[in-house]
Amino acid sequence: MKQILDRLSLKEKIGQLNQRLPGWDALRVEGSQLIVTDELKREVDQFGGIGSLYGLQRADPWSGRHWGNGIPPERSAEAAALVQSYIVENSSSGLPTLFVEEAPHGLQGLGGHVLPVNLAVGAAWDDALVAELAQEVAVELRSRGIHIALLSGLDMLRDPRWGRAEECFSEDPMLAARLVRATVTAMQDAGVGVVIKHLAAQGAGIGGRNGSGAPLGWRELHEIHLTAARAAAQAGVVGYMAAYNDVDGIACSANRDLLTGVLRETWGWEGIVMADCTALDRLLDQTPDHASAGALALKAGLDISFWDQAYVVLDEALDRGLISMEDVDQACARVLSVKERLGLLTPVPAPAANPVGATTRADALARRLARESVVLLRNNGVLPLSETSRLAVVGPNSDDLLSQLGDYTAPRPTPDPDSSTVRSALQECGFPVLHATGSKLRERIPGGVEAVRSAVDASDIAIVVVGSSSRRLYESEFAENGAVAGADLGMTNGEGVDMSRVSIDPVQIEVARAAREAGKPVVGIVIGGRPHALTEFAGYCDALLFSAFPGPTGGHAIADILTGAESPSGRLPVTLPGGEGVWPVAHDERRETSRGYANASYADNILLGTGLTYSTFESTILSATKTAAAEAEVRVRVLNSGSARSRYVVPLYGRRHVLGVRPRKRQIIDYSPVMLDPGAEQEIVFRLGLEQLGTVNSQGLLETAPGHLDVWVSDDLHPPTDSVRIEVQG
Amino acid sequence: MKQILDRLSLKEKIGQLNQRLPGWDALRVEGSQLIVTDELKREVDQFGGIGSLYGLQRADPWSGRHWGNGIPPERSAEAAALVQSYIVENSSSGLPTLFVEEAPHGLQGLGGHVLPVNLAVGAAWDDALVAELAQEVAVELRSRGIHIALLSGLDMLRDPRWGRAEECFSEDPMLAARLVRATVTAMQDAGVGVVIKHLAAQGAGIGGRNGSGAPLGWRELHEIHLTAARAAAQAGVVGYMAAYNDVDGIACSANRDLLTGVLRETWGWEGIVMADCTALDRLLDQTPDHASAGALALKAGLDISFWDQAYVVLDEALDRGLISMEDVDQACARVLSVKERLGLLTPVPAPAANPVGATTRADALARRLARESVVLLRNNGVLPLSETSRLAVVGPNSDDLLSQLGDYTAPRPTPDPDSSTVRSALQECGFPVLHATGSKLRERIPGGVEAVRSAVDASDIAIVVVGSSSRRLYESEFAENGAVAGADLGMTNGEGVDMSRVSIDPVQIEVARAAREAGKPVVGIVIGGRPHALTEFAGYCDALLFSAFPGPTGGHAIADILTGAESPSGRLPVTLPGGEGVWPVAHDERRETSRGYANASYADNILLGTGLTYSTFESTILSATKTAAAEAEVRVRVLNSGSARSRYVVPLYGRRHVLGVRPRKRQIIDYSPVMLDPGAEQEIVFRLGLEQLGTVNSQGLLETAPGHLDVWVSDDLHPPTDSVRIEVQG
Repeated sequence: MKQILDRLSLKEKIGQLNQRLPGWDALRVEGSQLIVTDELKREVDQFGGIGSLYGLQRADPWSGRHWGNGIPPERSAEAAALVQSYIVENSSSGLPTLFVEEAPHGLQGLGGHVLPVNLAVGAAWDDALVAELAQEVAVELRSRGIHIALLSGLDMLRDPRWGRAEECFSEDPMLAARLVRATVTAMQDAGVGVVIKHLAAQGAGIGGRNGSGAPLGWRELHEIHLTAARAAAQAGVVGYMAAYNDVDGIACSANRDLLTGVLRETWGWEGIVMADCTALDRLLDQTPDHASAGALALKAGLDISFWDQAYVVLDEALDRGLISMEDVDQACARVLSVKERLGLLTPVPAPAANPVGATTRADALARRLARESVVLLRNNGVLPLSETSRLAVVGPNSDDLLSQLGDYTAPRPTPDPDSSTVRSALQECGFPVLHATGSKLRERIPGGVEAVRSAVDASDIAIVVVGSSSRRLYESEFAENGAVAGADLGMTNGEGVDMSRVSIDPVQIEVARAAREAGKPVVGIVIGGRPHALTEFAGYCDALLFSAFPGPTGGHAIADILTGAESPSGRLPVTLPGGEGVWPVAHDERRETSRGYANASYADNILLGTGLTYSTFESTILSATKTAAAEAEVRVRVLNSGSARSRYVVPLYGRRHVLGVRPRKRQIIDYSPVMLDPGAEQEIVFRLGLEQLGTVNSQGLLETAPGHLDVWVSDDLHPPTDSVRIEVQG
Repeated sequence: MKQILDRLSLKEKIGQLNQRLPGWDALRVEGSQLIVTDELKREVDQFGGIGSLYGLQRADPWSGRHWGNGIPPERSAEAAALVQSYIVENSSSGLPTLFVEEAPHGLQGLGGHVLPVNLAVGAAWDDALVAELAQEVAVELRSRGIHIALLSGLDMLRDPRWGRAEECFSEDPMLAARLVRATVTAMQDAGVGVVIKHLAAQGAGIGGRNGSGAPLGWRELHEIHLTAARAAAQAGVVGYMAAYNDVDGIACSANRDLLTGVLRETWGWEGIVMADCTALDRLLDQTPDHASAGALALKAGLDISFWDQAYVVLDEALDRGLISMEDVDQACARVLSVKERLGLLTPVPAPAANPVGATTRADALARRLARESVVLLRNNGVLPLSETSRLAVVGPNSDDLLSQLGDYTAPRPTPDPDSSTVRSALQECGFPVLHATGSKLRERIPGGVEAVRSAVDASDIAIVVVGSSSRRLYESEFAENGAVAGADLGMTNGEGVDMSRVSIDPVQIEVARAAREAGKPVVGIVIGGRPHALTEFAGYCDALLFSAFPGPTGGHAIADILTGAESPSGRLPVTLPGGEGVWPVAHDERRETSRGYANASYADNILLGTGLTYSTFESTILSATKTAAAEAEVRVRVLNSGSARSRYVVPLYGRRHVLGVRPRKRQIIDYSPVMLDPGAEQEIVFRLGLEQLGTVNSQGLLETAPGHLDVWVSDDLHPPTDSVRIEVQG
């Protein structure tokens, strides 16, 4: 390492700290030819190498790459090898580059395997399955020559207005931390480095606006927003992406307390911190020029710039004495360490001859995950469907594959035989189906409501599928960082699409009303990317399901539930607000004496953890025993007391009391999914450690503080009478 | 002091730290008799004295005191003297009590002079007038035997949903700090001690819910929420009331960092910290019992409990070693110091023979303040009214005095000749007026809209007065601390009445629509207590005025503007959101790259500072000169370039750049009202010091940090091309 560093020129070092060339501009596909572009050559020349290359395989409206001009999946490994060879052979540094790609729910490249979005993953409460899928994705990435996956997971869903809500696992830090740990560990064990994003508190952006400031205090930051990041550090994550937002005035990209203090000094973590796209140049709002912006970030502990001028002029910053050569070397050494860790500094192995696409196994796992993520919020008995029912499948999301996929998704292949919508899947199941779209997401369709009424009139049951969509179009306008910049009535979710209202849109309500007025039972399904307010929509439904963007197999997954092939078992990973303006609503807000809003009822909120099965379950805490100062065991018995075999997630909720600190109402302490036949029971042992019993101290480390932890297994927000207390000594 | 302390028993010391007896229960009015109650006697016996007595003269629905059973204003001094004599003569301590009363906008006692609420005061931008009125109120309080006034002023209006929005001066810390300083100084110079509330950050309660947690960071806390508190400390305020909310998890009442660290150690302030009602017993959410709750608060630096059991059992806390006698003595010494400062420890002077009620001068000042607080948001030329117009004065707030008064108001006398509504005032002016209420605030009135249409049809101009109300009824339900507990369709504002929606209510919009449809010019007037979203209502109006609860003379004040007797000159002290869910919107949020909500336009927000006159003004910065390291002079010329004599508030806005800190978009740096005839001009010198040029350092003290301050005098949110830069060295 030191040897490499010693032989690099300043220019070459700076090259390692810049991720500047849009990857899709590095290679041109011409007929059967893959051709290295002049842009790539110029970039290599300018810096004597390229530290990392983002998005070589990215395909989506923003990059402008699609099946007509992008890298075909079967040639992706070859493409990566070609670019790598060019870089290694033509760089004065002789160093290979890191190939970095977006993979927040599968690779955002042509043919990439697409999973449910994080918000759906959060609803499944299934670390093991998430790990299996992460491994499948990692195998695919490696086979395509990719070294580093950018993964969402750290953002906490604290405001339903935020367009990136779908990228969050939960509002609860423990659930998010568990899923982050499972994902990072599985992917990295399979040989792909993870850069997890975003650090920190982007989910607390004021007003739910993308990248707005998060004026948070230290406790809120550590207890809510850094818990998942701490889990990632413990899992040895390769890197973090610094968030756009500031935390209490200090931009994350230039936040020394965060990037050096918390990550490296307190947590003892080693790895790279990458900027978000153009985030360093945005520091010009507080620095006089690019060189000082670069200096601010480098000194804070940020290693890799992402499309900024600020790190191009680090030589100027050095000349002006704003940074030292040690600062440059430190960042460069970190980048080289990651290359070493990922095997790039040993002779490069031959690329896999056959890139692995979506496998049958992965498809089955994804469908299982999608199924587990469906949350049954209400059921008056209409579900599961009778086999002989004639169905009217209506609503804007009833047959729109793009609305199921979420943001950061590559275009699907044509034909796309593995994908399904609610309409197509129910038809495949053999139901007679009449279909009507009814409306668009925010626009009426002429005759739409009438078509819905006709379809329902001629059916036994109405399936009304509404919600939101992160669909991007090739005609959309984009900001310089790829967020959507132009308003589009068809896109109601995703990066750059923050919404001040989160109810099901009035034009969609009209569709539900038309179905209801036809006098048939109504099954409402919300396919969406944020915690929608469902109070009004629910008023039209006999049964109600919530499915965060479930991915291409979403139709099948939802049909599995509707038909009763599987019992639903998802639980909301967030609290749904009961109405407009009724937020935030997280179950782990601190206790307060406010009675809520005079014009709205808290009872209309739908609490995190809500989710029915087709059976009934009874959970009881058998015992709670301290086994060490910061260890305890909670034994729980769970019984399937109903008549259907079902998966069931046993939650362990808790309220932590620390003297002198206002307690949070409820937090997830642990959880465990079981699969039980009717009448069967199972005993579960929850083993609690410092993570559950401890408190973050003023250094940002977990320690025990005097107080107690009340735990319970029912869905109550407040400790019920049968909650059990675990004393904690300081 | 030490001598007194030495002779007090523990019981007597504890008595000095408790403000436990509701004052209205201390005295009974029976015919012409004022009779000391058994409750008072028991309280004196229990503690060998009473440290302070809250609310002896309070009259309102919560206390249940009114003109039929309360203390008549002309006997208030006598009543206070009677209670004081009883206490002094029957206390083993022999110490007099402090009489404490609510006076957030005038005394909340029978006959008390009622001023516009703070939100209206903020709209006038007039420190000098505020000081004059504060002095009038103080003279009245003193003449009634009152020692301490509880005043709102520290809460910053950051969320329009909060029911106590009306008690805030502004969203901007500088405007609030100036008005707090003016009020505190004037009242205390007139001999009344001020306990200013609330400390701290109650306006940042999550969700705009009353008393909910404020998970704020240090910079946000100091820069936004402690600026006015710092001004109060500099003005030598007698005390602070600790807020209900927690700051980042630590309840303000038990927040040692705040009550001891910031107030006493950093700022060097000396005085008392009082709890809010029952706030210490609320600490039971984090402590095992009352004694430990009391210990937590006392150790933090809280001196006077307000209706808690927690401070009654301080002897138990002492026995258990949770506190020391030094802790008790310290708090007790602070209470005694305030008594000494207010002249209570010297022989008590004879009470004023004639309590001073609302004087003619005070009435005129209040009307002037109310007038200055009216903000003209839009005018297509319909205002001022032509003298010959026939007016239809309609809408729920067109003739409802209670809706003009705000929360914390005593019942008005009957008859009430000095008060006025828009209807009564315009009739007094001689206009032919047809009146129709149209609707209630949140309920239709049968035939209401039809009556509006008839009235407008028969008139030349429609005056539509809508808004909100903090009216409390004697039938309302109250929480233990006096906040409203039951929903009431007629009360849409005030403590305990947080609202998730802030637009003008749909039933009121129907009234405006009816007026508009009649085809006559419509003047819209919003009399309200929060930053309402006006977008829809404004769509029906040719002219639009916003008047935060203007008090009993509000009708006259608004009529003065409508008729053109005076030009409007108020400026919004807050930013009005453009629609539901579009918040927060403060002008001083930090810069961000978000484009706002996809479904809403920032252009619909109405920015702090907005406000038209009947003339036009041109302001120019002539020069900006550094006169010392942390001093500068900005010379501004202002010209009345229009055709009407008018008051005009010259604002000096600024953006402060500090290296490494994300700047706030805009802040009020200074302001100065002028009164100019058409064609006249005036030069103003703004003298900036550390308060304007400095930055809060990590100790919580103002210091200079390297960067610059851009200043400008136009109403732009961002520095315009003619902004002027003042360099600041570190």
